[in-house]
Amino acid sequence: MEKKKVLIIGGVACGAKTAARLARLAPEFDITILERGEHLSVAGCGFPYFVGDVVKEYKDLVCTPLGIVRDANFFRNVKNIAVHTGHMATRIDREKKVVAATDTASGEERLFPYDELVLATGASPIRPPIPGNDLSRVFTLWTMPDAMAMKSAIDAGSVKSAVIIGGGLIGMEVVEALVDRGISVSVADIQPTPLPALIGEDFGLRVTKVLRQKGVGFYGGEKVVEIIGENGVVTGVRTDKRTLPADMVLLAVGIRPNTILAKEAGLELHPNGTIVVDECLRTSDPAIYAGGDCVQSKNILTEKSVWQPMGSTANRQGRVIADNIAELPTRFAGVVGTAILKLFHLTIGKTGLNEEQAHAAGFDAVSIVVEEPDRPHFMPGMGAMTIRLVADRKSRRIVGAQIMGGGVVDKRLDSIVAAISAGMTVDMLADTDFAYAPPFATALDPTTHAANALRNKMDGLVKTYSAKELKALMEGANPPFLLDVRSPQELDLQGRIPYDFANIPLGQLRGRITEIPKDREIVTFCKISVRGWDAIATLRGNGYENVALLEGGIMAWPYDLR
Amino acid sequence: MEKKKVLIIGGVACGAKTAARLARLAPEFDITILERGEHLSVAGCGFPYFVGDVVKEYKDLVCTPLGIVRDANFFRNVKNIAVHTGHMATRIDREKKVVAATDTASGEERLFPYDELVLATGASPIRPPIPGNDLSRVFTLWTMPDAMAMKSAIDAGSVKSAVIIGGGLIGMEVVEALVDRGISVSVADIQPTPLPALIGEDFGLRVTKVLRQKGVGFYGGEKVVEIIGENGVVTGVRTDKRTLPADMVLLAVGIRPNTILAKEAGLELHPNGTIVVDECLRTSDPAIYAGGDCVQSKNILTEKSVWQPMGSTANRQGRVIADNIAELPTRFAGVVGTAILKLFHLTIGKTGLNEEQAHAAGFDAVSIVVEEPDRPHFMPGMGAMTIRLVADRKSRRIVGAQIMGGGVVDKRLDSIVAAISAGMTVDMLADTDFAYAPPFATALDPTTHAANALRNKMDGLVKTYSAKELKALMEGANPPFLLDVRSPQELDLQGRIPYDFANIPLGQLRGRITEIPKDREIVTFCKISVRGWDAIATLRGNGYENVALLEGGIMAWPYDLR
Repeated sequence: MEKKKVLIIGGVACGAKTAARLARLAPEFDITILERGEHLSVAGCGFPYFVGDVVKEYKDLVCTPLGIVRDANFFRNVKNIAVHTGHMATRIDREKKVVAATDTASGEERLFPYDELVLATGASPIRPPIPGNDLSRVFTLWTMPDAMAMKSAIDAGSVKSAVIIGGGLIGMEVVEALVDRGISVSVADIQPTPLPALIGEDFGLRVTKVLRQKGVGFYGGEKVVEIIGENGVVTGVRTDKRTLPADMVLLAVGIRPNTILAKEAGLELHPNGTIVVDECLRTSDPAIYAGGDCVQSKNILTEKSVWQPMGSTANRQGRVIADNIAELPTRFAGVVGTAILKLFHLTIGKTGLNEEQAHAAGFDAVSIVVEEPDRPHFMPGMGAMTIRLVADRKSRRIVGAQIMGGGVVDKRLDSIVAAISAGMTVDMLADTDFAYAPPFATALDPTTHAANALRNKMDGLVKTYSAKELKALMEGANPPFLLDVRSPQELDLQGRIPYDFANIPLGQLRGRITEIPKDREIVTFCKISVRGWDAIATLRGNGYENVALLEGGIMAWPYDLR
Repeated sequence: MEKKKVLIIGGVACGAKTAARLARLAPEFDITILERGEHLSVAGCGFPYFVGDVVKEYKDLVCTPLGIVRDANFFRNVKNIAVHTGHMATRIDREKKVVAATDTASGEERLFPYDELVLATGASPIRPPIPGNDLSRVFTLWTMPDAMAMKSAIDAGSVKSAVIIGGGLIGMEVVEALVDRGISVSVADIQPTPLPALIGEDFGLRVTKVLRQKGVGFYGGEKVVEIIGENGVVTGVRTDKRTLPADMVLLAVGIRPNTILAKEAGLELHPNGTIVVDECLRTSDPAIYAGGDCVQSKNILTEKSVWQPMGSTANRQGRVIADNIAELPTRFAGVVGTAILKLFHLTIGKTGLNEEQAHAAGFDAVSIVVEEPDRPHFMPGMGAMTIRLVADRKSRRIVGAQIMGGGVVDKRLDSIVAAISAGMTVDMLADTDFAYAPPFATALDPTTHAANALRNKMDGLVKTYSAKELKALMEGANPPFLLDVRSPQELDLQGRIPYDFANIPLGQLRGRITEIPKDREIVTFCKISVRGWDAIATLRGNGYENVALLEGGIMAWPYDLR
């Protein structure tokens, strides 16, 4: 292969990966990275854990597993890659194939020629134009300096209370970090419930309850109007409804792609400012590739271009770019839209589309909510999870899932990620030969249960209502007859649904069947709606045909209980 | 639907599942279970945990998550299913559609008519004809009485040492249980290494080392010739090489299907005695279904009928049988051959085919071994795992995997189970959008890394040797030049390969390149062979073309180190 000059702008995730892969594929290439910051190969997703002191040293986030810092020396000696940190690229001359960059220390401009250029310029946090956003201790958490500043403020002991503006993924990860540091935390968001990009309002309400148990106030549907301070230091956040005290504020309302350079160079951009790339991650200029947070990718399900700025996507894309520069015919398969976070004892994740997104994408979407233990009840450490599984009625393909719970949620999520990526139907997923032994799963894995429950619903074997649907019905003109088949002790322990209901434990139902009206729809449930399903069989066996099940039972009920 | 009489023989896994599902689908049916034992819906896979006292009460293995024992009353009241425990079916009259069963308490014979019959007769442990196999405290672990007898003996304090005959899945699960109870354990097996049905000899050697660390002797390749005793109680086990002391012996050499009833009724059987069934799990008599441990299933990869007696398979099959009796058009998809177990800190699992099986099935099999952390090194609880991934060169389909390690292995295994079931290629798996956040995974999941490494190998980007292949080379006439690029401290910590090698830390390689001979093949490695891959790039960049990598590095080396 000819000795190409490859220039990479950005050395955090996609850029560093591109360089490392390329150095292995084509050691004869002349590879250079320009990085505006001081650090390379930064594990930015680890910042919340650094702030929370789970990760003690910032070096842990920029070193190899053996403790060697991935600095310019490392890249030169180990990988034969030239790195210029503190170099801000300012201009691309596509004609001459030269990039101008400013050495931020000296202010000097230098020119870097290239045969092939890689834009891995990433994204930056949005700093909303709220009055007071320039006060001291108003942070974003995106770069290593951000993380160090935030941690220093906490280490200094001057932070007793904090407000996080934005209840998305980063905001929620930092909630846990700050609570772990003994800080009183509030979250304000214009959205009614947390994590709206991951989970629906029903799951979100349950997250809000967990936050409350941890002493965290979630102020949903509130607009932040001002960050207030004294002597230049933040003291609180004023929303349109209240004032929250704060010695520290985190702005976590979203990010935008860093694509001014690409725009000024005349590369084609999407309306949201991300760079248009093809399957090889080539931009509208065939000598320029782009990857990571600054580009959009094809969603495998919708075939539409979407922005999924994630560290995992950036790494996968770096590999594809390197392969193509080395003239290997690799294509980027696309994304399905996976995200996950840990929030106290909960793991919360999603992949693919939710029901609304699936409808919008033209699928005949149908979903179910199930509540399942992650292993047999007799094994220690059992955790319960709620799975919402979404499929397309026509093709029966799985198109999405959201999972939340205390058990091993990430395993089930990744199985469904694989299932969606491979185009599995609900029937295939239900019949997948997942690994079973008591420490790891139930004999039929929660994923299998979810697929089976969805098949039951799709095939008309049982009519079900989600909690939201049942709530609407109960508050409508013609509420159904609610039948709770739990034991009375469970009602005391787990709570009661806030509507009129009959409580007949399942074992007594056959003998007390005459208590059930014949002229109304009956909706059954129990703790997780497994006994509810048996109750439906009993009712049907006694001539009741207008019967339905509350999905996920009382455990998945997100609204208040009595 | 007409009111069918459905008779089910066996109420442990497949039988109980068939009945429960059918009662929901067709409450008007007359469903009867005949069970020869006393217990129904037994979580038999939990027995090792009961023996190990992780599960305290036997009732936990036969009750619902709410603590209600699934006895005949429960099945009658809750599910409208008639159950006869202590009833041993002795004869099927297919002409008259009647089963004869003996009430084991009274000795009385009763006749049970059926419209559709389900054989869920399971399997039984093989009691090898070794002299002394009838001594007291020589156990099998298959039924609830087996488990209770074994636990009682331990609880009585009379067991100081135990020998397990058979190093398969059940044998290994019981090893941990007995060690946890403070018993000195030895394992004897005719096979050279443990778990031969799950993992190859290289992984098996590493398991043997872990056993040794736990004080468990594994005596592989030894034939048990006698179980010796005094006064009718076992005192030891004599192999063809040694005598092992034992206050207790577990026979765990395998199981055979319980199909005498089916055979005598003239149903078609496989040569190994399992019942022949179609995709609906119908036997050669269309009025008789069979499922669970007594039947064979199609392997999805080989399309051949295989025996996979697992609780998960039995449960999936019960659902299919019920659907078909209720006239729903459900087919059993088949199995891929998944198994998993916990052994101390290790999780060990496999799915699909190993390289030899894949070759035998006509695949052009290629495999790789990688060593990967399950989450970033900076996160607490990080565990390392070894993945062997097997694919077919021609179709590029993933056909198998074995995984072993201290991290979250079961997640990666299930992702690959889904990938294999859906016919994913190695390229699709490598590009799957798995969930990433530091508590759960590395930015590129271990599964992704394994798929990428296998692609590199398949595409000729890097030549690799497995430990076994390298060992053979090193002990052959023309050994390659070994280059260990770890730091000297790591050599002290992790051990040295037991052959001549050069140790040049990766960062020094460029400057010391002249120490590497030009006329020999160079094989590089490090701790996990990631730096080894960089070393290959450095060598290639300096004109060395005859270079290769040791798969998995020193961590995956199963043989003795210096």
